[in-house]
Formats: sequence, structure tokens, C-alpha cells
Amino acid sequence: MAFKVMHTPPLDTGDSEAKRDEIRRYFRTTWELYEKLFEVMACDEAYFLRADPLRHPLIFYLGHTAVFFINKLVLAKSISGRVNPGFESIFAIGVDEMSWDDLDEKNYEWPTVSEVMAYRNQVRAVVEKAIDDLPLEIPVGWDDPHWVILMGIEHERIHLETSSVLMRQLPLDMVKPHPDWAICGNSGEAPANELRDVPGGKVVLGRPANRAHYGWDNEYGQLESDVESFRASRYLASNAEFREFVEAGGYITERWWTPEGWDWRSYRQAEHPAFWIPASDKEFRLRCFVEEIAMPWDWPVEVNQLEAKAFCNWKTETSGRPVRLPTEEEWYRLLEVAGLGDHATWDQSHGNINLAGYASPCPVTENISAGFGDVVGNVWQWTETPISGFPGFRVHPLYDDFSTPTFDTRHNLIKGGSWISTGNEATRDSRYAFRRHFYQHAGFRYIESETRVEIAEDIYESDALVSQYCEFHYGQDYYGVPNFMVTAAEICRELCAGRKIARALDLGCATGRATFELARFCDYVTGIDFSARFIKVGHLLQKKGYTRYAIPEEGELVSYHEKSLADMDLDNVRDKVEFRQGDAHNLKEQFTGYDLVLACNLIDRLYDPSLFIDHITPRINTGGLLVLMSPYTWLEDFTPKDKWLGGLKIDGENVTTLDGLRSRLEPGFRLVTEPRDVEFVIRETARKFQHTASQMTVWEKVL
Amino acid sequence: MAFKVMHTPPLDTGDSEAKRDEIRRYFRTTWELYEKLFEVMACDEAYFLRADPLRHPLIFYLGHTAVFFINKLVLAKSISGRVNPGFESIFAIGVDEMSWDDLDEKNYEWPTVSEVMAYRNQVRAVVEKAIDDLPLEIPVGWDDPHWVILMGIEHERIHLETSSVLMRQLPLDMVKPHPDWAICGNSGEAPANELRDVPGGKVVLGRPANRAHYGWDNEYGQLESDVESFRASRYLASNAEFREFVEAGGYITERWWTPEGWDWRSYRQAEHPAFWIPASDKEFRLRCFVEEIAMPWDWPVEVNQLEAKAFCNWKTETSGRPVRLPTEEEWYRLLEVAGLGDHATWDQSHGNINLAGYASPCPVTENISAGFGDVVGNVWQWTETPISGFPGFRVHPLYDDFSTPTFDTRHNLIKGGSWISTGNEATRDSRYAFRRHFYQHAGFRYIESETRVEIAEDIYESDALVSQYCEFHYGQDYYGVPNFMVTAAEICRELCAGRKIARALDLGCATGRATFELARFCDYVTGIDFSARFIKVGHLLQKKGYTRYAIPEEGELVSYHEKSLADMDLDNVRDKVEFRQGDAHNLKEQFTGYDLVLACNLIDRLYDPSLFIDHITPRINTGGLLVLMSPYTWLEDFTPKDKWLGGLKIDGENVTTLDGLRSRLEPGFRLVTEPRDVEFVIRETARKFQHTASQMTVWEKVL
Repeated sequence: MAFKVMHTPPLDTGDSEAKRDEIRRYFRTTWELYEKLFEVMACDEAYFLRADPLRHPLIFYLGHTAVFFINKLVLAKSISGRVNPGFESIFAIGVDEMSWDDLDEKNYEWPTVSEVMAYRNQVRAVVEKAIDDLPLEIPVGWDDPHWVILMGIEHERIHLETSSVLMRQLPLDMVKPHPDWAICGNSGEAPANELRDVPGGKVVLGRPANRAHYGWDNEYGQLESDVESFRASRYLASNAEFREFVEAGGYITERWWTPEGWDWRSYRQAEHPAFWIPASDKEFRLRCFVEEIAMPWDWPVEVNQLEAKAFCNWKTETSGRPVRLPTEEEWYRLLEVAGLGDHATWDQSHGNINLAGYASPCPVTENISAGFGDVVGNVWQWTETPISGFPGFRVHPLYDDFSTPTFDTRHNLIKGGSWISTGNEATRDSRYAFRRHFYQHAGFRYIESETRVEIAEDIYESDALVSQYCEFHYGQDYYGVPNFMVTAAEICRELCAGRKIARALDLGCATGRATFELARFCDYVTGIDFSARFIKVGHLLQKKGYTRYAIPEEGELVSYHEKSLADMDLDNVRDKVEFRQGDAHNLKEQFTGYDLVLACNLIDRLYDPSLFIDHITPRINTGGLLVLMSPYTWLEDFTPKDKWLGGLKIDGENVTTLDGLRSRLEPGFRLVTEPRDVEFVIRETARKFQHTASQMTVWEKVL
Repeated sequence: MAFKVMHTPPLDTGDSEAKRDEIRRYFRTTWELYEKLFEVMACDEAYFLRADPLRHPLIFYLGHTAVFFINKLVLAKSISGRVNPGFESIFAIGVDEMSWDDLDEKNYEWPTVSEVMAYRNQVRAVVEKAIDDLPLEIPVGWDDPHWVILMGIEHERIHLETSSVLMRQLPLDMVKPHPDWAICGNSGEAPANELRDVPGGKVVLGRPANRAHYGWDNEYGQLESDVESFRASRYLASNAEFREFVEAGGYITERWWTPEGWDWRSYRQAEHPAFWIPASDKEFRLRCFVEEIAMPWDWPVEVNQLEAKAFCNWKTETSGRPVRLPTEEEWYRLLEVAGLGDHATWDQSHGNINLAGYASPCPVTENISAGFGDVVGNVWQWTETPISGFPGFRVHPLYDDFSTPTFDTRHNLIKGGSWISTGNEATRDSRYAFRRHFYQHAGFRYIESETRVEIAEDIYESDALVSQYCEFHYGQDYYGVPNFMVTAAEICRELCAGRKIARALDLGCATGRATFELARFCDYVTGIDFSARFIKVGHLLQKKGYTRYAIPEEGELVSYHEKSLADMDLDNVRDKVEFRQGDAHNLKEQFTGYDLVLACNLIDRLYDPSLFIDHITPRINTGGLLVLMSPYTWLEDFTPKDKWLGGLKIDGENVTTLDGLRSRLEPGFRLVTEPRDVEFVIRETARKFQHTASQMTVWEKVL
């Protein structure tokens, strides 16, 4: 390369003015590098073609990285005015795949290339002034003004890579070779691949908060994991190795594909990797960034995750061994075994990365560490792991949709970086994920392992009601009203003082807080709810120790939250609870023999509360307690009026729910204490809450 | 009569044990009198016939008055057990007219007469024991145990009369003459009627809380009124006088009837009063209680209110004078003029009432006071006035549906009592009302008056949302949060300190509290709301000084509330406000020149908040204030998302409503103070509330 590549700067050391200079240089290098990428465009027309039918043309991306700086600086109140409000709207969103409607050309009247370049020059001046003017102290942290500058720079470096992928998808005559973007000239016969042992061991994932470099929100937090031993392919799968799969009928054999993969293959009518160009002699050529060359069979194959996965399944069938992609954790384990694990920032010494080598992949044999090729660099490596946040994850307030929209189990992580990965992308802790059918400069290493991959359903809970209940059960207190579930369980503890509670039931447990709380003093607690949507939260908390959810703030704006059992000092009761889906009117036989049954806000949501009372009674031990809490909000949507326990006129007279409970429960049960009201608050938005008093009645089974 | 009639006992004087004896005697007299009424039934079969197709058969009423005692005593927790739960259900409700479905015979398996009589005997013993056992102190008040005994007795006395009406509607062979129920033997030629002057004067309606006797809830409170002079017919309209109307084509001439009256007439195909029996000689006979006799033309005609009203309209047309029925106030004025006004309890000296004379009406000439016949007694007199509570009205907690269901402008008051009106019915302060098409032992006196009758729309607000806002604006504080409208107005007052506010606008005023509150310091305040349902409350408060509403407690149970401007010290601003219906996006031209515009919880309920801002801006004086309060609860139900001021991502970035307000209002407006949150609480039920924080921003118009 004829231009200087810089590493993403450390932010925790050095003199502040020297750091300001370094950031300025890093900005300029990035800015110029990005513009140099566009020098491969053959003509202005090329900017307005869609390289991918579901993506914007390149003109968008040329404007977008500049607009991003302005929009984030405005949001951070670091600059007062806009540069070009029109541009800052049309170039703002649309990075990702879109629907056909959004892409309707009549919705976009793109400026000319020279107009966008003129705009970029204006923005460059604004950003440079901001770099000069904004206060800077060492260390530069997540909340500091210069963090936003780094955000803009690293954002542009991401687009450096992703734009190069789009350019690679343009017709060949729309791009042109460029001396600064020269591809690798080496290629030869592909090596035979082989599997090599990777001993198991502990890995620690996650960028510590005090790490020296800029990081995206999804990199923070921490996940420790014990990785079982596995065997990994010595080399990334080469074009030659993948040809075996193609020739074995890989693209016409449905059984090797996941259902999602086969759907994609059928939709695209794919017959081979996308950058393989069929030539007249039945051979393939390879479309590189801006050139087409004879197929370099010893370079890594570039495919999407669905193709890589199909290859592994074919390999499993033909080898009789369990072949798959590595998980994120397994990739980090391999990184350590390869002796590359302690490098915060990679440079050319470790592989074909950081534009230190070529503007293309190179043979899979060229960069070997501890017997493994291309653990870092050359092309990204697909994993089995959908991206999600590590425990401790929180969104950056100025870019709250950088990561969370991808936490949907449909975006898989790629690891290791490619020849054009720079800046944050080229750090050990970076985490990028794409839809499994997307193309990047990405291929794969395959492994053999008996260890089953567990895909956590670790998405941000966005089901509005479930999220609301997550906050109700695990979130903060509002209006000074203590957590309702904690209070309910505390009162139960007082009521049970001195008695052994072998089995307790939390009926209508919703997202499960009271189930956990009861387990502080009960030997075993079952949480049952009719809604599997709710139960899922309790399950996940029990299994993973934390839950995540997004709740509305104002309009469609949301905030993201993570709550862990450890924070509530409930980590030690995980083995004392179970969550089950069930109907309070018709529980399975096993749910019986209870010393304590708690039903919070349940009875006025049942279709037949009297039937519930009849049903639960024989399941309570004599001397056991039935604790009912309800605001008696009877609604015909839930309970036909003739089934209401009270809150209506019967034979012309007012009958309260308390009256109705007495008449149904006595004398088999005895009212232990005077009824009392327990307040609760359910948050709907940042400013709107339900504030309710639930009446608690405690009934001892005496007959 | 061969049996002793007792007056309803005074409850504020005498020895408590003597009073207990008196109540016991009053109970027994009533109980036996009621059973004696049923002695006119010719056979058991008669009990099971429907006298009126929309009413229960008489067997229901025989059981009902006993069941009422038990149900109220149970409700009051004065007795512990029931006598016969089955009877206490089937005889509990159904006094009023019902729909055909409810009356489906298969829903009712009536007990035999002897079973019901046996039950009555059991109940009698229970009530007598309660009279013996329940504590009794003088005075006996509304909350005391013996008040419930009186309630049961007076309830039975009402049914004494209403059952006699139903018996009168049975076929003649189903009843039989009875020596204790002997009708009047006097009749002769009807007198010519004439109009006599009644001088105007002040009347005070309403039973004082400390009055000596039992009263129903609707009798309490107080209403003072200045009655204009009018002329009243010397006699109640006689059968002879009414015949003139019939012969003039009264029942076939639609223009004399109210629309409701004509509908009724058409449905019933009525051609004359219901108790007039056409005889073979084209003459009429009269169906009395249990006998049919030659028409006594000088007895008062008995008709429903619709027939009486048609008569008056005919009379107006033929006389050229404004003839109508008296209002409730005019009847009380006549009572005073007749010299009967100071009697709390009437007895035989005043007329054919209290069973002191006959078991029938008597000639209209028989009881004359100060020149007017039958001001009290003989038959009830229909009025123009639909019943409603007096200011200060509140329901009795043990009988909360005695009155309020009739406060619907469809039940008109009858005054004066009939020959069979006893007990409370025969007191000056009693107030009974029936649907205008009902038959009672009722006729009418007509009057001539230029004074227009104003029918107050004085029903209990039961529109759920309007009631909720009545409580929000005028009701109590919850969770320690001060009244939101008062706080908003107070903050406005502080903001305006020292400035003259000639014109203020409360936009989105709902039920109008802030409009009144602003008038404490503004010269004139206009309250505007899009909803006429809401505006009505402000109108009524301004006009009458109070409002009434029913709000949910639990399930379908409600509580009744009355709030007056005087209680809020706002009586003196009634002339400084106006309420108008209007669209905040499109106000009439006259609504301009404001020094202060308050918009509470408005902007997130508009279909186009920006249009509203554009629209209101020129209507605010330079230097004037625009005070916006909103929780920013944006919902597409109210505001299309593309019209939200904030709470969404614009060009990919979060934009809050405050951001949106700034960008739309500045620089024409200046933000005067930092935004602040003002809490409010809206009650949904006794236990469920919305607890919200509204952000207040204050904008001074500077351009």
C-alpha cells in the first residue's frame, strides 16, 4: 500500500494535546483512505448503480460516513448547527438491506458525486474544528466528547470494508484497477487440509471497560467459558476444498442445508460461491475487489454462513465425524492456542490484515501460527454464534441502535478480520455480525467437535407486555413504591416465620421474580404461568442468570436494560426453582402438596376464579397458606361477569370481591390476618405508569 | 278502615326503649297491612298472572318485601345468616319494568302462595328479633342499625301502594271486594274547573339532615327557588274534564302529544285512560282497585304523565293560554299557599290520604284548602319535573340504587300522595318518580304560566371517560399528588405575576377545572375542548354550580359524587369563564388576542400538533405565554407517526418531543424556564390509577 495505515489509538496514555494530534491524524488517514477507496470507481454512473438489488448505490455510502459525523456531533451537542440538513437526512439511514418499497427510486434524488465530495470537504473542516475545540482529557472515555470523534472514525472504517464488498459486486466495467489497491499475485495448488487438535481451556470474552482503545457497545461486558477440546482445520477452507462440495452436488442437495439456507439457495438459484465467475471452459474465474482473475484455488473460499454450514454438513456426512463451524468461544480458544491471544491490536506480523499486505486474500498457506493458518486475517471466518451482548452489556446513548437490532439470533458473528479490516475491526475484542446470507470478505474454518452448539435465545425482549413485566419484576422502583414481588415474598416469609416450607407455588408467576424471591426461604418453588411468553423470562434467568429487555421511553424510542440474578443476590437460588407453563384451572397432577401458594394479580384474570379455588384447594397441605393478591380489576375481557367473585350486584345487593372470597373459601380456609393493600407500579413509558393497590388476603387451610 | 294506620315515627325524640316499641308496632302494622292487601286476591292463580305484561306477577311482590328486609340486614351485618337463600335470590330483584327476556317464564319457578306466606312468617320473626336486639339510641340516624329496619318498613309501604296498582290491573275476577278496602260511595256531577292565582314566592325543597323522620336518600340536600306567580286549576282534572279532551280527538291528534307521548299512544293504541272501561252503551265505567263501577265523573282522572301533558297542550291550543303541569317547585309553592306547607306528616285532616278515607279516590270537591282541592291526597299529581338529587345529595350506602337509576331525566316526580300513600310517602318531603308512561294512582292539576320549564340535564354523569375526568379535575387527591389542574393554574399564576391577563385560553379544557382556576387571576378565560361530552360538565358547573358523577369502585360497583364550585371557592368566577366546543387546529376567529394559552395534556392527542402550533401562534399576543403540558404519550390512534413532534428516530437519530418543540417554536417563542415535570393521577377504580408525569414547557412569544 502506498498510504499509511494507522492503528486505532490507545486512549488511556500520553499527553492530551499529543493525543489530540494523534486523533486528528487518525481521522485524516481514515477520511482519505475512504475517499481513496472510491478512486476505483470507473465513472460517476457507477455511483448510482445498485451493486446489490436490496442496497443503496455507492453514492449513499460516500455521503453516509460524513453525515454520520455531523448527526452524532449534533446529537452530542458538540456542534451547534448542521452543514446540509437535506444531505443529513437522505444519507442518514439505509445502510442495511431494505425492503423494495424503501428503495423505490422516486424516493431518492441523489446529489451528484461532486456535490457529495464538496459536502465531504465541508464536513471534514467541521470535524477537524471539533477535534481542535472539544475538551480532551486522558483517558478518553465512553462519555467524552472525543469518543464521538472516534465513533465517527471507526464507523467510517467499517464502511471502508463494507463498501469494498459492494464495489466487488458492481459490474467489472464499473470499477478499475488502482495501484494503491493491488491484489496478491501469489497462488498455486491448494494444500490438503487436515484437522488438528485444539486442547480445551477457559476463555474470557469481552472488552474490559478500562481497555485502551475505542470499542463498540457490544464488545463490553464479560463472558467466561470453558471450551471443550476440539479439532480445527489447519487451513481456512480453500476454493479448491470447497470445489469438492460443489462437485458433490452441494448446491442441489437439500439435506445438507439448513431450512434457512435452502430457502436462500432456492431464492438465489445459487450453484456456486457468488464471486466464482463461470468461464467458457467450464472452469471458474474469481471476481476480486476490482479485477477478475484465474481462480486462485489455494486462496480461501468466500461464502456466506449458509453455504459454509452446508459444506460442514456435507463434510459430516462424508467423514462420519461431527463437523461444524466454530463458536465464538472456540475461535477465541484457537486464537490463544495459536499464540495470538494477547494482542490487543493486530498488525501485519500476524497475517493478511489491516491493509498491510494486499487488496485481496492470499494463499491459505501464507500465514501460519502454531500450525494454524489465518487464525487472524485474510478473510473473516463465520461462526455458529449469533451475536448478542455479553453480560454487562449496555447501549451507548449516542448510538443506541448500533447493536441491539442485530441481537435477534439472525446475525452471526464473523471473527478474525480480512485483508481490509482496520482500526477497531482489527482488534482482538472486535465483534461484527451479519445476516447469515450476507456476503463479506468472509470464508470459514471448519472444526470437528462432539460438543453441541447451544444457540441462546438471547434477544432483547421486545414483546411490549413481557418487557413491561420484566421492568415491573426486575427493574427500578418508581414513586417510592418498593418492588411488589419482593414485598409479596417478604410478607409470605413473615407469615411462614419458623415453618419449614418444603414446596411453594407461585401461580401466575409472569416473569418470575416472586418465584426466585420465595426460594430465599422455601426449599423449592414452582413458578407457573399460562403464558409461555412470560415463562421464557424466568427460564432464561434461571439458565443464564440475566435477562434483557427494551422498554418504551417516549413514542417509539426505547431504552435497553439488563438485569442479573447476581445483582439481586438471587444467584444462589437458581437450583431451587422451576418454571412451568400451566393453566391455574387445570394444573398437572404433579403440582400438589404445597405449604404455600402465592397468586399475585391472578384471580381477576382467570376465566373462572371459583373453579380455580376448587382446583387449588386439594393441592394445599392442611395448615398451608393460600396468599391472594389482587386489585380486583374485573373485566369481561378476561372473566365473564357471571364468574366474577365480586364487584357486582347479586340479588340486587353490592357484593365486593372480599365478600365473594369469604363465601367461597370459608370455612375450609381461615382468614389469617386483616386484608391489606400492597401498592405496585407498572411503567408504561418514561412518564406514564399504572399505580395500583393489590389487596392481599391470607388464607390458612384448616380442613 | 278497620285497621290502624300509623304515621312514620319521629326518630329524634323520646325514650329509646319506647322508640323500640314504637318501631316494632310500626313494623307489625305495616307487615299486616301489606298482607291484608293481598286478601283481595280471589284465588292462588291470581298471584301468578301478570297484571302488566312487563312486570312480575303478584307472588313476586308478596315475597319481595320480606326478602328486602333480610337482604338489607345481611348487608348491614345486622343478622348473620339467611332465612332461605333461594327465595332471597328469586324475590330480590325485578320490581321495575323488565325486558321480555328477563321475564321468560322458564327462568322463574315461583313457590306457592303458602310457601311464601310461611317464609314471611319466618322473616317476621327474624325482623322482630332484630328490632329487639339491635342497639338503639335516640336520635336514630342514617348510619344506625334501626335505620335499616325503617328502610324495610318504608320499602314495604311503597309496595303497598304499587302492588295495589298492579292488582287494579288484574282481571276483575281475579280480585274480590274486601270490607277493609271499601271504596268511596260519593260521586256526582263534576264541577266546572277554573284557574286561580298562586302568588309567587320562595320555596325551600329538601329534607334537612336533622328532620325527625326516616327519609330516602333523594329527599336530602337543599334547593332554594324563587317561584314566579302562576294560576292553578282549582281542582284536579276530573274524569269529566278529561272526557272533553277525549271527545275532542285527544287520542288521535298527534300534535298535542310529545314525541315520547305519541310513541307510547301508538304502541298501546290507547283511546282513553287505562282504567276507563268502555261499556256497551258507549259510556265508560271505572275500574277501581277491586271493583268496577259506573263512571264517577267528579273523581280525579287517573292517567300517566304523557296523557296529562297531551291534555295540557290541547288546553293551551283551545284556550290560547300557556297551560302545563306544575313543576316540583310550583307544587311546593301551592302547598304553602294552601296552608299545608308546615306539616311534616299529613294525616286525614288534610285529604284523602294515608288510608284515612277510602280505598279509592273521591270527588275532587271533597277536600279543599284555601280554595284548592286535593293539594294533598286523593291521587298523586304528575309534574313537569324529572327527578334528580338536590344539591348535597348522596346515596345511602346500603341502598345505593334506590334513586340514582331514576336520575336519568326519564322519571318524572309525582307529588301530593294518593288515598293509599302512607308512612314516608305521606310526608311533605317525600319524592317519588316514575317513568312517564307508568300508571300509578295518579292524575294531575294543570296550571297556566308564562314561565318556561327548564329541564336540567341533571343526570349522574356515567359516561366512563367523562366521569373519570370529573374525578381527575374535581375529585380527591391520590397518592399525595396535588390536583393537576390546580397546580397548572398556580404555576401559570406565578409565571404571570404582576401582569394583567385580560384573556386566557384553556385549550383541551376537558371538564374545565383549569378554566375556573385560571379565572382566579385572569379577567376572562375561555375553555375549549373538542369533545362536547367534556364541555357539558364545565357548562353545568358554570350554570348550576355543581356536577355529579358516578365512578367505578370495583367491577360494576360505582360510587356517586357531587362537587360544587362553592366547595372549591370558585363560585365567584362563574361570570369570568366560558366553555366552547372547538378544534385546536381550527379555532373560530373570535378566539384570539390571548395573553396566556394553557394546553394541558393536549399536544399528544392532536392529529397534527405542528398545525396546531402554526394555528395558535397568531392568536397569542406578543409577550404572551404558551404553556404546554404533556406526558408525550404518542399513540398512532391519535396522531399519525409522521406528525409526532418527537419520540421517534429522525434520520436515524433519537428526537425527543422537547427537541421537536424547540425546533418548531424557536425563535418565535423563547423557552422561559427549564422544563419541569408535573405529576398527575387519574383514578380508574378504587384500586387502579394512572400515575403520570406531564412535562411543562413555558414559551414566551417574542416575535
